[in-house]
Amino acid sequence: MRGFASYVRLADALRVVLSRVKPLGLEVVPFDRAIGRVLAEDVISKVDVPPFDRAAVDGYAVRARSTFRASENKPVRLHVVGSVTIGESTRLRVKEGTAAKIMTGAPIPKGADAVVMVENTEAGDDYIDTRVPLPPGKNVSARGEDVQAGARVLRRGKRLKSHDVGMLVSIGNLNVRVFRRPRVAILATGGELRQPGTRLKAAQITNINSHSLAAAVTSCGGLPRQLGIVPDKTAALRKALLKAARQDLVLVSGGSSVGERDLVPDVIAERGELLFHGVAMRPGGPTAFGVIKNKPIFALAGFPVASLVAFDMLVRPTVHKMQGLPADRGFFRVHARLSRKISSTLGRMDVVRVKLQFGEKGLVAEPIRVTGSGILSSMTNADGFVVVPEDLEGFREGSLVEVELY
Amino acid sequence: MRGFASYVRLADALRVVLSRVKPLGLEVVPFDRAIGRVLAEDVISKVDVPPFDRAAVDGYAVRARSTFRASENKPVRLHVVGSVTIGESTRLRVKEGTAAKIMTGAPIPKGADAVVMVENTEAGDDYIDTRVPLPPGKNVSARGEDVQAGARVLRRGKRLKSHDVGMLVSIGNLNVRVFRRPRVAILATGGELRQPGTRLKAAQITNINSHSLAAAVTSCGGLPRQLGIVPDKTAALRKALLKAARQDLVLVSGGSSVGERDLVPDVIAERGELLFHGVAMRPGGPTAFGVIKNKPIFALAGFPVASLVAFDMLVRPTVHKMQGLPADRGFFRVHARLSRKISSTLGRMDVVRVKLQFGEKGLVAEPIRVTGSGILSSMTNADGFVVVPEDLEGFREGSLVEVELY
Repeated sequence: MRGFASYVRLADALRVVLSRVKPLGLEVVPFDRAIGRVLAEDVISKVDVPPFDRAAVDGYAVRARSTFRASENKPVRLHVVGSVTIGESTRLRVKEGTAAKIMTGAPIPKGADAVVMVENTEAGDDYIDTRVPLPPGKNVSARGEDVQAGARVLRRGKRLKSHDVGMLVSIGNLNVRVFRRPRVAILATGGELRQPGTRLKAAQITNINSHSLAAAVTSCGGLPRQLGIVPDKTAALRKALLKAARQDLVLVSGGSSVGERDLVPDVIAERGELLFHGVAMRPGGPTAFGVIKNKPIFALAGFPVASLVAFDMLVRPTVHKMQGLPADRGFFRVHARLSRKISSTLGRMDVVRVKLQFGEKGLVAEPIRVTGSGILSSMTNADGFVVVPEDLEGFREGSLVEVELY
Repeated sequence: MRGFASYVRLADALRVVLSRVKPLGLEVVPFDRAIGRVLAEDVISKVDVPPFDRAAVDGYAVRARSTFRASENKPVRLHVVGSVTIGESTRLRVKEGTAAKIMTGAPIPKGADAVVMVENTEAGDDYIDTRVPLPPGKNVSARGEDVQAGARVLRRGKRLKSHDVGMLVSIGNLNVRVFRRPRVAILATGGELRQPGTRLKAAQITNINSHSLAAAVTSCGGLPRQLGIVPDKTAALRKALLKAARQDLVLVSGGSSVGERDLVPDVIAERGELLFHGVAMRPGGPTAFGVIKNKPIFALAGFPVASLVAFDMLVRPTVHKMQGLPADRGFFRVHARLSRKISSTLGRMDVVRVKLQFGEKGLVAEPIRVTGSGILSSMTNADGFVVVPEDLEGFREGSLVEVELY
């Protein structure tokens, strides 16, 4: 048994990881499966939206200049020459002094350049009176008003939301090129582990990490591939890691520290390249990273919280980068005042889970007390976390801190 | 043709809607499909986690009092009586003056109550020297330290995240009772509409709304059910709405206003109960709501942005309530300063899309200029929106406003 020889700072660790990772290839998906995916190309519209001048209200299509002299006291009378049907082109022609009945969405007939709202008219048998002067273009959705042919409507690297899907449909771009989602192999190692649902004997515990890591992978856009529990023996680990390296990324939980049974870093070194082992952060310190057959492999701690924190700090930016997103944690950040001081150790980054509440003077963050990194309840109760950098000994009560939200 | 007789305020409209909606029934899902689902019951642990006293570090299990006299200058020597294996119960017994080699996660042997970290020992053939005095419990994950049997670990109404899935596994709660996700029927009506991929003739446009609404439904936890395009004829709409009312909730886009072809509110009134028609907000004013066969039905505007804004304001809280979440929009809120004034009209609520940027003095919100409610590009470019309440005429440049984030 031995201690950690040295710890790498998180920023340096992340730099090493990201230097070994690049966006995966592209694939084409139909618009109705594109939500949440990341665009691999700028989307340029080939068409005008709307594709023709349309009425934006129900009323009467007119030549605007026919209404210029209208006023509250002196209405203008226009002869109604017909009605425009929605969904069909029209041969109607509107001249000065005439109007055509029109519904929202119907094409503006030739000659007309504005629509009088029905509320602003008094209708007779074959005429209308209006007291409102209109400028040209009033109540018309002009061709290309929303999107002009040739315009870039969505940028490469954007994660598609529901509005974006609407935009893709409206420009007729029904298939879209997106980054492939990383397939992430997940293994757990440890002689004490049993799969969920197995009856535990004394000294055995349930394999939690494979499942909370799978959920975390899904939450940042990856596709988890469960490869089960591997015995903590060199031969078995060697075989399992080589198989796992067929996926895009590998996560192993357990066996990442420096005890006799912590074999994962050694196996990575033996079959590939071990790039760091031990990160100066808490929890999550016993984390190693390397590559086997060019595939990035993280060895994460066996303690549930330690593995999830290391996931957030190192794996999440990796999964983001692989699918063309910015290589960061991607959590939304807010500012809050600490309800209690946080103590840390110089030279080590601390990740402190907090609960948020709205107080009189804005958001208040309450650090959650924990005694060990096995305390999963500290995460289920947390709204987010505060990072204490390596060069600080903590934050005083009342400090304004940045909270990243789960 | 007629104008809107009157408009209902959004708050009143929402009150009416929510009075007609309640959480749907429950279903049981396995833990690995539970992420994003809403708990329908408190989760109480039946077990202690961890289930036995475990070593929290690699080192030697000892009786703490054996180390009380240890100091930097005067190490204590302890006789090593054996080694504890991970995953197996042990018959080893640690007495005062003795120690047992132990790995992280292995069960603490009888008699021991603390673990000396390997880094704090010097090992001989069958003994160790340590210079660090330990209090009882040091470096031990005690049985029940994370969760005690009988403790409530997750609350009813919580939307499950990855940590929560880990918690469910760790307490052996592999199947969980959650609220059913609402099935939301989606129809579009309008003679000018054609499905995506159809070659458009003059005066026709693509049906966008069915697809952006489906994406919006998915984004708040509902299950969209596409029922296609319905002609704007009374008989066809009647049949379609009755069929749609077999789902939990119905959304119809188009035909919601007061023109001759705006037949949806009339059909709702005829076959069920029309509860309001016309909301004092922009965009999204031409929105109606009612029930047919006890199923809530929204008639949304045909303009893409108007239908999406009405969705956010009225449908999103509905879908949330149906799955046991708080009946609100659920968007995250931040404060920002307006880069430009917003003008509005007294008596009407305005929803103004904004772009956010980090400025020198914090977040700056830039209102996006739009001319019509058809401008979908105003939403794809927006980071969120500002609500101007009915009793304000707008906000001045530089005002601090609340932005809800998309």
